[in-house]
Parts: sequence; C-alpha cells; structure tokens
Amino acid sequence: MDIRAGLLKGDKRAAARLITLAENGDEDAVKIISEYYHLTGKARIIGITGPPGAGKSTVTDKLAKLLRQQNKTVGIIAVDPTSPFTGGAILGDRVRMNDLSTDQGVFIRSMATRGALGGLSKAVHDTVRIMDIYGMDYIFIETVGVGQSEVDIVKLADTVVMVMVPGLGDDIQAIKAGIMEIGDIFAVNKSDREGAERTATEIEVMLDFNRTTDFRPKVINIIARDNDRVDKLLEAIEGHWNYLCKDSNYQTRKKNNIKTEIIGLINQYVVKSIQNDNQSNLIQNMVEKVYDKQIDPYSAAIDILEKVSLGKQQS
Amino acid sequence: MDIRAGLLKGDKRAAARLITLAENGDEDAVKIISEYYHLTGKARIIGITGPPGAGKSTVTDKLAKLLRQQNKTVGIIAVDPTSPFTGGAILGDRVRMNDLSTDQGVFIRSMATRGALGGLSKAVHDTVRIMDIYGMDYIFIETVGVGQSEVDIVKLADTVVMVMVPGLGDDIQAIKAGIMEIGDIFAVNKSDREGAERTATEIEVMLDFNRTTDFRPKVINIIARDNDRVDKLLEAIEGHWNYLCKDSNYQTRKKNNIKTEIIGLINQYVVKSIQNDNQSNLIQNMVEKVYDKQIDPYSAAIDILEKVSLGKQQS
Repeated sequence: MDIRAGLLKGDKRAAARLITLAENGDEDAVKIISEYYHLTGKARIIGITGPPGAGKSTVTDKLAKLLRQQNKTVGIIAVDPTSPFTGGAILGDRVRMNDLSTDQGVFIRSMATRGALGGLSKAVHDTVRIMDIYGMDYIFIETVGVGQSEVDIVKLADTVVMVMVPGLGDDIQAIKAGIMEIGDIFAVNKSDREGAERTATEIEVMLDFNRTTDFRPKVINIIARDNDRVDKLLEAIEGHWNYLCKDSNYQTRKKNNIKTEIIGLINQYVVKSIQNDNQSNLIQNMVEKVYDKQIDPYSAAIDILEKVSLGKQQS
Repeated sequence: MDIRAGLLKGDKRAAARLITLAENGDEDAVKIISEYYHLTGKARIIGITGPPGAGKSTVTDKLAKLLRQQNKTVGIIAVDPTSPFTGGAILGDRVRMNDLSTDQGVFIRSMATRGALGGLSKAVHDTVRIMDIYGMDYIFIETVGVGQSEVDIVKLADTVVMVMVPGLGDDIQAIKAGIMEIGDIFAVNKSDREGAERTATEIEVMLDFNRTTDFRPKVINIIARDNDRVDKLLEAIEGHWNYLCKDSNYQTRKKNNIKTEIIGLINQYVVKSIQNDNQSNLIQNMVEKVYDKQIDPYSAAIDILEKVSLGKQQS
C-alpha cells in the first residue's frame, strides 16, 4: 500500500497505517507528515477532558453525531489511562461508539498513555496532524483530565471542553481545581443527578474569581446520554471559535502550542541521542558512578551533555 | 542563616529553606545537594499512591505514627494535583496531619504538580535527597496515582504502596489498571465498606495473571482511619525491603531510577539552554516559521538542536 497516495485519496486504511507507524516512532512517518505539513491547519481541534466517570466518551459521541448531521467529518483520538498490563479497558469504552465507527465520515483512534514509543504527546500531535491531512473537519482529543501529561496533551486543542459531573465529593474537587484553568467551556454532565445546579454554580464562582483572560468560559448543564442540551454545548464551542478568530487570539494560542511541541521534540531527540548505540555506554557508566556516589546526578547530566554530539546524531 | 551548617546540625528551617530554593530551580540548591550527595542513600523511600478518594493521606499518616513509635524519623512529601488557580486544596488535606506536624521527628512538605519551576519530578527528587541528608529514616512520597508524570514520580521510591478502595466503579478500574504494575504492595483501604473482599480478590487475580517479576505483591485489607491492620501494612513494607536486600534487586531498581533521573535532568538542561537569553530568538523565529508553514515542527526541532551549544551553556 502506498501510504502517501492513499492518504491524499482519502483511504482510511492508509491514514490508520501511518498513525501506527507514527506511534511506533518510525522515521518514515515523520517524513511523510513533514512533507504534507503545509496541508495541515484546516481541522478544528477540540479537547474533551475531565475527571474519571464524567462521561467524556458519551459527550464526544453525541457531539460527533451532531457534527455528522451537519455533514462535517470527525476524527476522535481517545487517550486512555490504561497500560499494557490490561489492554481491555480501552475496548469497553470504545464499544459505545460502535455506531459511529461504521460511519465513513468518522475516524476513531484509541491510544494508551503507555506503550506509545517516543512519548504520548508526540503520538497525539502526529495523529492530529494525520487526521488533519486526511481531511477531517473536526478532531476530538479525549483524555482523562488528571495528571500533568494528560493536561499537557489536551492543551494542544483549539478549544478545551471540561466535562464535570455533580457530586464527585471533596477529593475530586482538588483535581477539578487542577484542570480548571485550561477549560474554555465547562459542561456539567449527568445534570439529572442531585447537585447539578450547585456544581454549575461552584464552577461559575471559581471562574468569576480566578479568570485572567478576557474570555469568560460558559458553564452548561447537559445530559449527554439523553442528548439533552448537547446542541447548546456545540454552540458554545462555536462561540469560543469566534472568540479565537478575533484579533490575534488564535495566533497566540497556536504559537504557544508550536513552541511547546518543538521543545518536546527536542527533548525526545536528546533522549534518543544519548540512548543510541554509540553513546549508551556513556550513560551506563555514569549511572554506575552515581550509584557508587563518585559523582552526583546533576554533575553527571551536565557531563553527558558536554560529551554527547546531539546535532550530528540527527542528520 | 547558613543552610549548610543548619542542614548538618539538623535545623529543620535550614532544610525547609533549601527545599524552597530547589523548588524554585535555584542553582545554589543544586550545589549544596551535590556537595552532600555522598550523605544520601540512608533513607528508605516509600511511595504511596492510588486513585482519588482512596485515603492516601490517612494511610501515610498512620504509617508515620507507627514508625514514630519505633523512634524512626519520617519525612512526608505530599504531591497535590492542584494548581496556582486554587491553592486551597492542599491545605485541607494536610490539616489531618496536624498532630504529626508538631512532632520534631516528622518533616512534612506539600508540593503542587504545577508551579515547581524546572519540573515537578526534579523538585521531588531534590526534596527526597534533602530530607535524606537531613537524616530522615523514612521518606514518604504521596501522590494521586493517575497520570503519567505522577506515576513516574512515585516510581523513584524503594517500595510503592498502592492504596485501593472498594466500589469505585468501572471507570476507576481503568485507572487502577494503569497503575497496577508499579505496586509492590496493595492496601485495600476503607475495608469496612461493601465489596472490600471482592476488590482484594480482583487485585489478587490480576496479580496472578500478569506479574512478570519474582516478587509477588501482598494485598492487605485495612481501615486506616481506625488504625486497623496498618501494622500489617508496615510489615509488608518491611517484607518488600527484605526482598530488595536480596541479590541485586536493590541495585537494579536504584540504577534504573538513577538513569531515569539523569535523562530527566538532561532534558531540563536542554530546555533551559534553548530558552536562555542568547538563544530564545532562535526558538521564537522557528515558531514563526512553523506557524507560517515554511518548515514543519520536526525539522525545526532538529535545526535548533544543531544550532544550539548545549554543553557550553552549562559550564
């Protein structure tokens, strides 16, 4: 199969194969994405995040269906906080999207937080780009909103929807707090449950007290399962897009994301450099020295950096 | 205040001050830790992790009290998944440890997952080391066990205790799965709740099917709040230590951790290098080019790596 030709012709298998290559850290994948980089930037990227149990999959599912009714094509990248230890958890979640997965205008991809060689963040970036080149109008990145790396991933979206849920208790409040600042829209899902109004009010209060930018996120009570007020959520997403299109908002956000990505890539290349065949002895020797307390880890790191030839290794 | 003298004399304020410096990425902190690096390695490092609401603080609290009864000194590093957006969440949790915090043999430090300049992982590593030099016999690292970075942090411990809780529902199962492989001991807390035995059995089954190393983790039902069977948990921690002391188990684990730390430090130094005054234009120009689609981010990263002088910047 010629991936290049397939990708441009809209062959889903070609796109899927390229994503797998990218996930495995294959150099060819990077080459192909680089070649077609000028074709990216057309897709709208929506991050869907929130605490476990908030119903993120269902929200994504319903939003995707609404967009399909408007004849928009939709990519979905589901980042699951699971591991090679039990791969099963991914499947259960994705089964709910079954009716979407037979739709040719929908492209679903699950991604584990481990296992992606060369970093999850890069794998998600690459997948977004491939789906963009492939021609998806909207790309959803769905990830559980706890943990620094997961938060970093969702930040690459144009619009971040925080999915909340009533009555998660005090302990979840701390997590909610940690991810609050990255939300552009807050959806209180399962709003038929007790305390939905209170949760919405709490969020509103936090937003009033803490917001630093001129954009004021909307808080919307929804019941995704029943498709209740999901259209209002989509309207809010469009509203945020309109905000981005004003002045230099979009540019600023995009450039910040590009900077973060480049720094991430540099880090990856550095790690690759110091772990490659010629230089792996260097780090192993240093580990022995640190273990024997002949040198401290800080000095060891600097020492390796001075000895390693980073630039050349890449060319 | 002379931090060096204070630290060796056992002045808690000196140690606390040094931790703050380290958190702020201060170069002097690195210097002092490097100087005293040969004094590290005496403390036993215990990671306490698990899903939100499992009662990790209470478990740490009770273990610390047991150790204090044995005249051991205890350091506690509580990593909170909170943010500058709401600093309050940390406090609420820590209040429970109030009776411990007045004990001179206990050193408690809270750390937010954001805000630590130069990376949370480095800040935790540094704090462990400072508490070790300061003379703590046991050092607990307490962190919510969801999210890649948080899992990475707890891995630096000699022994990782996974705190579970009955009846968290299906959604939490996925998270449990993600952190399962790093647990050396499993404590099912709140075991007076319905389903405690079933949760323990489920964990046992998963361990039977998936364990790859020769060490079989113990699963222990506890009620930390009532101090019920916390002594059994401490026994299990000692049991894991005995395993580590056999053959080269400890060495292997420690060397892996050292390698991870060195790579992390190298990454930090690289980021610092490319963001410093002389070179910040380099990355900013590249961001503009990527934004304008004149170059793709992968090529941009390699280009910067080739132009930047990493080694020299550090010396």
